[in-house]
Amino acid sequence: MIPINPRPKVKTSLRGTLLFSFLPLMITRLLHTRYRVHDLEKTVSFYRDVLGLEEVRRSESDRGSKLVFLKAPQSTEEIEICQYDASGPVQVGPDLTHLAFEVTDLEAFAKNATAKGYPLSDGPHKTPTGSLIAFIDAPEGYEIELIQH
Amino acid sequence: MIPINPRPKVKTSLRGTLLFSFLPLMITRLLHTRYRVHDLEKTVSFYRDVLGLEEVRRSESDRGSKLVFLKAPQSTEEIEICQYDASGPVQVGPDLTHLAFEVTDLEAFAKNATAKGYPLSDGPHKTPTGSLIAFIDAPEGYEIELIQH
Repeated sequence: MIPINPRPKVKTSLRGTLLFSFLPLMITRLLHTRYRVHDLEKTVSFYRDVLGLEEVRRSESDRGSKLVFLKAPQSTEEIEICQYDASGPVQVGPDLTHLAFEVTDLEAFAKNATAKGYPLSDGPHKTPTGSLIAFIDAPEGYEIELIQH
Repeated sequence: MIPINPRPKVKTSLRGTLLFSFLPLMITRLLHTRYRVHDLEKTVSFYRDVLGLEEVRRSESDRGSKLVFLKAPQSTEEIEICQYDASGPVQVGPDLTHLAFEVTDLEAFAKNATAKGYPLSDGPHKTPTGSLIAFIDAPEGYEIELIQH
């Protein structure tokens, strides 16, 4: 049995070993998480001016959806904010999804975000590992988790 | 004016420059994207056995939600799959969100995924930049984008 593209760092079961041995490694990395919104500028302003993310680029897709890509300072993965009203109203189901960001100082972050109209919706709570976590409501029903290690 | 924590790579407007000059850099990086599901094992199997992601760890939160963290081979950002039925049915609104992954060989990926019961739902399409993109339906109404550069 000759591994085609083994992944040395992955601890695998026998089943996993067999699976990976016969499959080329096809997915390499996560490029972005996409969230569709109705009010593009309101959400982009939230990510940029409240969370402090960098706006990387803007584009328009073939079908006419407006896209803005943002990223956190030390991340490679991007966040794609999309406006495409032809898909209908934006409906974020209860407790469906969130993005979790690392913060260096949760108390200072909360003070700044509150001053900009975005108070914490939950927390801060201390976890069993000693981290602090909290949540903040993003526009249009989305949610952000903040973790201070 | 002494910058507290300047971000040299960010092109800023005068407003941005002033803003960043007075604010410590608080969000550092994106840690994970969380999706809630009803059938935890079905979705974990999809990410692990169809997409080829690594299961990193499992835990249970204080309120009793079951969490499984996964990641792509070359990524640091994780995907948190959560089961917590007390939040109600999982409702993924139309065209709401997706995760986009880089693939090395979209044709081979599609062949393998189809054999496992997950055919492409859209594409492949060639973009103006020469990339290939396609989509695949994940369990419970979620969607995955695949991009071959």
